[in-house]
Amino acid sequence: MIKKIKVGVNGFGVIGKRVADAVTLQDDMELVGVSDVVTDWRIKMAAHKGYSVYSSNPEAKEQMTKAGLEIMGTLEDLLKKVDVIVDATPKGIGAKNKLLYDQQKVKSIFQGGEKHELTGFSFVAQANYKEALGRDFVRCVSCNTTGLTRIVHALHQNGLVKKVRAVLFRRGTDPWESHKNGLINTVVPEKDIPSHQGPDVKTILPDLEITTIAASGPFNLSHLHTIFVELNRIVTKEEIVAIYRQTPRVVMIKKSEGLEGLNSTIELMRDLERPRNDMWEVALWEDILAVDGKELMMVYQVHNESIVIPENIDAIRAITSLETDARASIAKTDHSLGIVSNFL
Amino acid sequence: MIKKIKVGVNGFGVIGKRVADAVTLQDDMELVGVSDVVTDWRIKMAAHKGYSVYSSNPEAKEQMTKAGLEIMGTLEDLLKKVDVIVDATPKGIGAKNKLLYDQQKVKSIFQGGEKHELTGFSFVAQANYKEALGRDFVRCVSCNTTGLTRIVHALHQNGLVKKVRAVLFRRGTDPWESHKNGLINTVVPEKDIPSHQGPDVKTILPDLEITTIAASGPFNLSHLHTIFVELNRIVTKEEIVAIYRQTPRVVMIKKSEGLEGLNSTIELMRDLERPRNDMWEVALWEDILAVDGKELMMVYQVHNESIVIPENIDAIRAITSLETDARASIAKTDHSLGIVSNFL
Repeated sequence: MIKKIKVGVNGFGVIGKRVADAVTLQDDMELVGVSDVVTDWRIKMAAHKGYSVYSSNPEAKEQMTKAGLEIMGTLEDLLKKVDVIVDATPKGIGAKNKLLYDQQKVKSIFQGGEKHELTGFSFVAQANYKEALGRDFVRCVSCNTTGLTRIVHALHQNGLVKKVRAVLFRRGTDPWESHKNGLINTVVPEKDIPSHQGPDVKTILPDLEITTIAASGPFNLSHLHTIFVELNRIVTKEEIVAIYRQTPRVVMIKKSEGLEGLNSTIELMRDLERPRNDMWEVALWEDILAVDGKELMMVYQVHNESIVIPENIDAIRAITSLETDARASIAKTDHSLGIVSNFL
Repeated sequence: MIKKIKVGVNGFGVIGKRVADAVTLQDDMELVGVSDVVTDWRIKMAAHKGYSVYSSNPEAKEQMTKAGLEIMGTLEDLLKKVDVIVDATPKGIGAKNKLLYDQQKVKSIFQGGEKHELTGFSFVAQANYKEALGRDFVRCVSCNTTGLTRIVHALHQNGLVKKVRAVLFRRGTDPWESHKNGLINTVVPEKDIPSHQGPDVKTILPDLEITTIAASGPFNLSHLHTIFVELNRIVTKEEIVAIYRQTPRVVMIKKSEGLEGLNSTIELMRDLERPRNDMWEVALWEDILAVDGKELMMVYQVHNESIVIPENIDAIRAITSLETDARASIAKTDHSLGIVSNFL
């Protein structure tokens, strides 16, 4: 029998609830429990699914109990029972939690909202799995950085990239909080160029020349990236397409097959009956992709809510050395979640 | 007394109505009349403003008369009375109309929806006014191409540009037709890379290295462009800002002064009590603008409805040789419309 790694999830939000679900699909992991501070439908859904619910602090425990939830203990209690804690708390909270995780000698995985410096190591499975082996803590980078890394690493490992210039159009807000936040009829460019994703990709691929500009618009189905890659040599479109056909977690789609915009692929996910319409893969438009001499230009879609989920699962395997081969871990995760290389 | 050029406008839509208004503000032009085929509030507004209304064809004349409009004649009648006709009809219609204009020996100005080949000459005032002198027909390029040309020409004429890579986020539809068309909660990338605007800029600046990617989103206040300019030499941010301070019809704005997104500048236009909240200038974010060695990166806003209006007015002057000096025409147009070099 395979040894099962005991996993806890702190923060049952957009990422945390998906990580928890994904952990339950792994035959080499066991979800011990999830921890949060909220008292409403979100955490009640965890109880409904049969997950053991913990409170992230004692005050929250009182409130959550009052709200009718059965609380198994506090985060400290949960930490005593797990090998790995996946921290999916809001930006900045993870940094505070790390002290506790380290004290309790529990390996920890953080999300892209935390700074690279918190762990000194940022992770995208297909780019640097081996370097994550046995570490005590790693950071899964944000949705945009994960998608961007998958796309550029495929070219970079083939020695093709001179410089990457990418423009990221971010969804205005997440669907679950569209009632309170969100942009209406405007686009808001980010204050700084480069936006954080370019430098963040360099935490994974330090020798990559990359710069990014980002803006947010009034849509929440996912992000859209457009990218110019200045190559070291002249390539054909066929050569590039062949590379991406071999790239994990990148799926080619076509405008000519009616996949016109962000909404089309999400509708496809609905028809495929995926949990929460999730698209863990980067969707790359094959027929928009263009090559002009040494210049490669592409448009692709990044499903912000779900793209980092497989990375979190692989990170659990890597830091516990449960699986030392990147390909094997990726294949296992992909099989468990239903990640494909073609949607149809 | 200055000779007044007699101008007609065919098509009283988003561009046509603005050109008509702008012509009435010129002391060297006379608006003889406007022509259209619609019968509703749009053309009734022309009558309300005291403009002579013509019908673009005999069938339309009957319908428009039935709708209570006083019709002064058909387009052919209007053409007999004018020196210049500005064609602002929907994409493709202008090409058909040109035969009539040529037959009647009336100089004509077309919009960016028509192909460059229709006139063999495309126009942006500050880039190629002199070359337009005395021509029988010119094409004012589209809003995006006009904005893009203003931004890149400023650098190009200083010999700085190696290559331009731009990403254009287009508004989903125009405000007036938002009830029937428009994108909700999605982004739709264009089918082709490069999108038409890059090659279109080359109709004006043939020796410029430029490529573009475009997509449309669910907002209609204007377009947002992000641009990477690969320069021939290292520059400072100050040097670039100094160039744009000297560039006509480009205004620097700042995030730090609360101009956060497309909506902020349009709100500013409302407060400035501009007609229809129009922003004829390109709004360029000064504090987002970044220079990294030979790489210049910028974000700017293009008000699609109004940006080509000053170009149409200058085109009238150029093709009639009413004014042979570009600067003089631009200054005259800018003064008449209220175009500024600083919004506040």
